[in-house]
Amino acid sequence: MNTSDSQGPGLRPHERVDPFLDGRLKIIQSRRGYRFSVDALHLSGFARIGAEDRVLDLGTGCGIIPLMLLLSGAASGVVGLEIQEDLASQAFRNAALNGLEGKMAVVRGDLRQLPFEARSFDVVLCNPPYRKANSGRINPDRERAIARHEILASLGDVLNAARWLLGGKGRLATIYPAERLTDLLVRMRGIGLEPKRLQAVHPSLDAPAKLVLVEGVCDGRPGLEILPPLVDQGGFSLPRP
Amino acid sequence: MNTSDSQGPGLRPHERVDPFLDGRLKIIQSRRGYRFSVDALHLSGFARIGAEDRVLDLGTGCGIIPLMLLLSGAASGVVGLEIQEDLASQAFRNAALNGLEGKMAVVRGDLRQLPFEARSFDVVLCNPPYRKANSGRINPDRERAIARHEILASLGDVLNAARWLLGGKGRLATIYPAERLTDLLVRMRGIGLEPKRLQAVHPSLDAPAKLVLVEGVCDGRPGLEILPPLVDQGGFSLPRP
Repeated sequence: MNTSDSQGPGLRPHERVDPFLDGRLKIIQSRRGYRFSVDALHLSGFARIGAEDRVLDLGTGCGIIPLMLLLSGAASGVVGLEIQEDLASQAFRNAALNGLEGKMAVVRGDLRQLPFEARSFDVVLCNPPYRKANSGRINPDRERAIARHEILASLGDVLNAARWLLGGKGRLATIYPAERLTDLLVRMRGIGLEPKRLQAVHPSLDAPAKLVLVEGVCDGRPGLEILPPLVDQGGFSLPRP
Repeated sequence: MNTSDSQGPGLRPHERVDPFLDGRLKIIQSRRGYRFSVDALHLSGFARIGAEDRVLDLGTGCGIIPLMLLLSGAASGVVGLEIQEDLASQAFRNAALNGLEGKMAVVRGDLRQLPFEARSFDVVLCNPPYRKANSGRINPDRERAIARHEILASLGDVLNAARWLLGGKGRLATIYPAERLTDLLVRMRGIGLEPKRLQAVHPSLDAPAKLVLVEGVCDGRPGLEILPPLVDQGGFSLPRP
């Protein structure tokens, strides 16, 4: 990854612009706080999105998922919801920096008190904080900690929000630690987001999975497709549209 | 697979002896009724068995799983439970045919009315009938139908039986259609057999999984390991002991 210290529009002192994809994508991120991870790229590639779908990214951070979906043509418009002011601002400026301000909206808000009406979306994506709030070492950087630990949003909060926001046969696409797959599937079924597609992400074909990508469909009939495994070789490419 | 029509000990008219593993394993099976499938081989290789473990195969059919576990040295003794008289008889004779009668017991009985005391085993294996009793075409051969459809045993029956039979940190190893993974995990957790290991079986690395192998541990703590995918290339080899 190359980095650039050139000042972009409204760059704040603690931020920098990182170019990706031969400069086709430029991302304002904090130098030290939250920075997007490969999880977001996997999730962008996994989600199935129709041409007319209304798409929301819950907890969008710097906006990486909307940016990827728009740049690849997978979606024609995406809304990002983000609770942290600094990150919501980055996402907003990232939309402009990449010439996508007409297709990408950023809303600052809390997924526990949603600023949207019920059934407002067809597809919800969420790369949730998935470390338990009371487990392990909490990151001393609060911005990063909120993005990774269940401090402001638990898995239950995320699923409740998705269920509320999705209409008809709406879909949630999420990524979660492989070791918590049972939690995820049990809760998704419990709330009426039936798991329909699952893909395990392995560091190599000889190693256990670290992550799982799961799609749930509102009131879907039981029946899960387990996709071919995804081997994470650390690359960075656009998802196929 | 080579087949032999040579008459083994007590071979019945509708049966024949099939040799496997260069003749190291000989299996009496029905010519047309139930015949073991590759599922049983995958399950034999997946189960973790300690040297002192008391091991039960629920619905052992012709005894293929006990035979594989004993031949590979994975287990030192195995009990097979089978409800169908013809199959129980085959399993009994297969033990003798392979010189394993001292290590393999066959009990004819119903897993819904178990002929064992609670907590009698450390490891239970089950390759259950997993087609819904009222779905799809029921096999006109009743022996085969009972082995494949939920006629005499449902998933709930299998899990109830395993939970009753296992003591301490006892383990259930089972194989199930990939599309029903959510059912399996939800029910296992619900009954206190916490899923701890999962392996998906794919026909190739480019194809969706057809089957999942899952191990549950009595009253285990949540936390699932998703093993590297298993690619089913149709081979037949002994599991590593």
